[in-house]
This record gives sequence, C-alpha cells and structure tokens, in this order.
Amino acid sequence: MPHPVIAIHAGAGAIARAELSAGREFEIRAALEAALEAGWKVLDADGASLDAVEQAVRVLEDCPLFNAGCGAVFNAEAEIELDACIMAGNGLRAGAVAGLRTVRNPVSLARAVMEHTPHVLLAGAGAEAFARSRGLEPVPPIYFQTIERRQALARVRAGAATADKDRHGTVGAVALDWAGDLAAATSTGGMTNKRQGRIGDSPIVGAGTYADQRVAVSCTGDGEVFLRCNAAFRVSALMELAGTTATQAARRTLALVKRLGGSGGMIAIDKSGAVTMPFNSEGMYRGIRRSNSSVRTGIYREDTQRRLP
Amino acid sequence: MPHPVIAIHAGAGAIARAELSAGREFEIRAALEAALEAGWKVLDADGASLDAVEQAVRVLEDCPLFNAGCGAVFNAEAEIELDACIMAGNGLRAGAVAGLRTVRNPVSLARAVMEHTPHVLLAGAGAEAFARSRGLEPVPPIYFQTIERRQALARVRAGAATADKDRHGTVGAVALDWAGDLAAATSTGGMTNKRQGRIGDSPIVGAGTYADQRVAVSCTGDGEVFLRCNAAFRVSALMELAGTTATQAARRTLALVKRLGGSGGMIAIDKSGAVTMPFNSEGMYRGIRRSNSSVRTGIYREDTQRRLP
Repeated sequence: MPHPVIAIHAGAGAIARAELSAGREFEIRAALEAALEAGWKVLDADGASLDAVEQAVRVLEDCPLFNAGCGAVFNAEAEIELDACIMAGNGLRAGAVAGLRTVRNPVSLARAVMEHTPHVLLAGAGAEAFARSRGLEPVPPIYFQTIERRQALARVRAGAATADKDRHGTVGAVALDWAGDLAAATSTGGMTNKRQGRIGDSPIVGAGTYADQRVAVSCTGDGEVFLRCNAAFRVSALMELAGTTATQAARRTLALVKRLGGSGGMIAIDKSGAVTMPFNSEGMYRGIRRSNSSVRTGIYREDTQRRLP
Repeated sequence: MPHPVIAIHAGAGAIARAELSAGREFEIRAALEAALEAGWKVLDADGASLDAVEQAVRVLEDCPLFNAGCGAVFNAEAEIELDACIMAGNGLRAGAVAGLRTVRNPVSLARAVMEHTPHVLLAGAGAEAFARSRGLEPVPPIYFQTIERRQALARVRAGAATADKDRHGTVGAVALDWAGDLAAATSTGGMTNKRQGRIGDSPIVGAGTYADQRVAVSCTGDGEVFLRCNAAFRVSALMELAGTTATQAARRTLALVKRLGGSGGMIAIDKSGAVTMPFNSEGMYRGIRRSNSSVRTGIYREDTQRRLP
C-alpha cells in the first residue's frame, strides 16, 4: 500500500538569487515547512488528502510572503481579488471560488462550495454572500494588503519590465492519503495589474487544479496559457490515454505551455505516491513531506538535483 | 480540401412532445435555421469559422426561446447572469465572460476579451466595465427577462419536480471554414435558481467549449458535471491520444457524464468536416448546414435517424 505524501508549491518564476536575501530565503523555507507540517499532521493521523491539502494551503494563504490570501497581488484598480479551487480525486468532486475580497481563506470557501452547494464554481458577490451564509467572518480588504505588492503594482504601472515575482506566486498542494485517495488545491491573487474580474487557471478544474484516482495536480505560472491548454487535466489524460508516467506527462504539458509562450511549473502526485515538480522558470518555491523522510524544500533548479523530485 | 460546415445546438433535455405545440416547434426550427444561415453566410463568403460561430450564437442569444441572452433563466435572486466563451482552434486562442447583467451579446464580449485583453476569462463588474470601454451599449436587465423563465423560477422555488427545460437550454455553435480552421462558441444563462455568482461549464475552456486544430466542441447539459470531467477538451484528448473518431470520443465523454449523474449533449466538428451531435437526454435542439445540402434541424432522437448526424 503506498504511503502518504504531500507536496506543495508557492509559485514559479525568475527568482534571482541577488534579489533573495539569506534572511528572506530562510523565511520562505520556514513558511513552506510550516505548510507541509500542517498537511502532514493530517495524513499522519490517518486523515484525508482533501483535509491535508486544505490545511497546507491555508497556511500558505495566511503567510504574507506568497500571492494568495494575505500578501496577494493588486489588480489594475488597486484591489485584491482572490481565486481558489479544491478537488478530491475520489468521485471527481470539486469546489472553486473567484473574485473574493473579504474571505481570509479562499480554499476553505472552495471546499464549502463543493460540500454545501450543487455548484462547482462561485464568483464575486454571490460567493461572498455564500461565505456569510456559512458563518465565515469577513476580514477587511486591508487584511490582504502588503507594501511589497503595492510597490509591485506601481512598478508594473510605471511600465517597468515585469519581474516574474510581480506577476505570479500562486500556492498549491497535492496529497495522497493512507486510503489511497488523491486531492489537489490551489489558491492565488492572480497577476499584478490584472483587469478587475479576471479569472485565471487556478480556480478552474482541469486548468490550474485537478485530481482523479490517477493523479493530483496543482499549477502555477502564466494562468491564461495554462487555461487554454487544460494543463492540469492534460497530465491525467496523457497518463490514461498515452500511458506516460506523471513526470513525462507533466513535462510534455509544460513543453506545450512553453510553445504557447507561457512559463511556470506544476506539482503532481500519482496514486503510487510518486511526486514530480517540473518548472520551466528559473525557480519554483516547493516542498515535500513523506513518512520515511524529513521535510524537504527547494527554490532553485539545483535543489532538485540535490534533494527533491 | 474539406468543405465548410456549421453545426449548432440550443440545449438538451426532456423535451416532451406533449409540451411542445406545433406552433412552438415551428418557431424553434425557424430560429435554428436563422442561426445556421447567419453562420453559413460567413463561411460561404470565405469567412472565418470564428466569425461564423459568433454570428450564429448572436442570433440564438437574441431569440427569447433559448436560455442565452434574451430569454435566459433566472438565478435564485431573480436576476439574470450570463456566461459565454469563444475559442479559435488555430493558436488555441480563447475568450470568455461570466456573470454579465447588461451585455446583450455575451459571445461578442467573450471575443473582445480574447482579442483586446491579455486575459481569457473576465467576470462580473470587471467584465461589464470592459464592455463599456469597448463601446458596447448596455441594455437594461429587463431586456433579458421573459414570462416563461419567471414561471420556471416560481415552479423550481415551489419545489416542483424540475423539468429539464427549466434547468438548461444553453446555445452553442461549432464551425469549420475553407481555410480548415475550427472554432467553437457557447452562451448561456446557466440553470434556473442557480446561486448568484455560479459559473457553469459554458464559459470554461475545455469544459463547455473547446477548439484546437483537431476538433471543435460545444456542450449543453448539467454544467457542473461537464466541468468536473473537462468534457469538451476530453473529446480532443481521446482523439489525439486514443485515436478515436470525434463520434466515439463524444460518446465516451457523454458516458462518463452519465456515470457522474449528468445528462446533456454536445456538438463537435473534426478537421475533415465530420459532425457529431450525441445527447443522452430525450432531445436536443440542433441543426447543421453544409454547402452541398440544405439546412437540417432536429429536436428528437428520431430526427437523427432521419436526417442528422
């Protein structure tokens, strides 16, 4: 029986070493470890992969370093609009939300959509009203705002060459539990200076997030490209219909993303517990936790050769 | 060189003969023919499949008989919220909109998103603001409202057994042009009594709408199920990776939809111009127009045996 495992990401991009101080790198690795531990605690206690990915993503949403929940990027109107999706491989159950402004943990509202409505995707004021009806306390929009993201908006508006870190930084998790069930979750603020109302790939089943009984996938990168090529579901389709491994499927999908002009990465776990984390950008914040090994986190490509899948 | 062809649908469901008077059936067939002619005119004049599907869907949106644009269903707040998507197979270009309240032809705004923004999907107030910026005159919400759809909302609220026709009736078109390019478009008011902010499969690339260089697909039916199984893109994946025909791929996908508890149908055209229009409901409003044959429309299953693919 495959042992449980959880993997997370917190965005892919041109993470220049020069820009990343030792102190900031330490903070990022500590945040990734905290998220992995939150998810691992669930799996280790015989919990469900669905709970594990929700708990891991909540930690990343609450961390101001990443572009999801607190610390999300600003849109062109200097507002923050949040998207998230969660999916259980068992039964192809999914819930998603888009354009949230006052919900602290979008991933948990996505789960409530899955479990307490006949719908999959709720957006905007309707989603906020649903959050109230579920007893989720609103947080004020200022809760999500950070000075770094305001500066990023100013840079993009001034027409400065957009650093990847100003564009994305989506977070996500995939997990396999003792019961053999897979789950995936993704949460994001989208891209800096996006149009009001823009929805990217993260909250779209099969684009930024997907799970079935074969594989669980969460993506990060140029959302519009991932959307146009159904990136997350494509990984499963390649495995089912072309007989590839998860690693081959993820790499083939990222190659298509690149041909369409996109950059980014994804994390995936198959039903045997094999993990793959490819990216075509300079780096991707990522981490993994298994029963028989300690927490491992990575940022740059070299980390892969050293310690990560 | 394959000749151009256009196919349309205007919703699948339990279309009981008893409910459909001869007069109403005549009106519906006339509306389907008008939509086919609008699209065919474009193709016949050597125009692009993208223009053809947009023009056909605009006619269906403007017709109060169908659940898209004027005549759309009401949500649980007795409002109308409209979704649409358009996709060009050449280059995998796509645009989509969700939650529109004042845009007469959502499919044309979806096309504007594709051509005049870096985004794929815009929702709610942001999408409406974009419509204004493109010079699209707003129509008042009352423009979309019909007495039949108000009565349907009242029936659903009263807990009456939901007739399929009260739930869906999405419209869509797929086309192949002289240049060999495929395109697809879908437009809908969603489902009667849906939660405010609910987004179904229609505006989601790969769920309700998809086109690449192999096949163009537009779906109708239980949106949440089509969303969860990436129905439209799945057709293309089955053709590419499992070597099936469009007909086989569409049937296999509908079988999965059914296993997940969903009903509905889809229309698809492959690059050779072969058309398939399967549905697992009692009927589907549909039609087809080719150069070497006259317009053909259908409602019931028997129409297929007689004259339709």
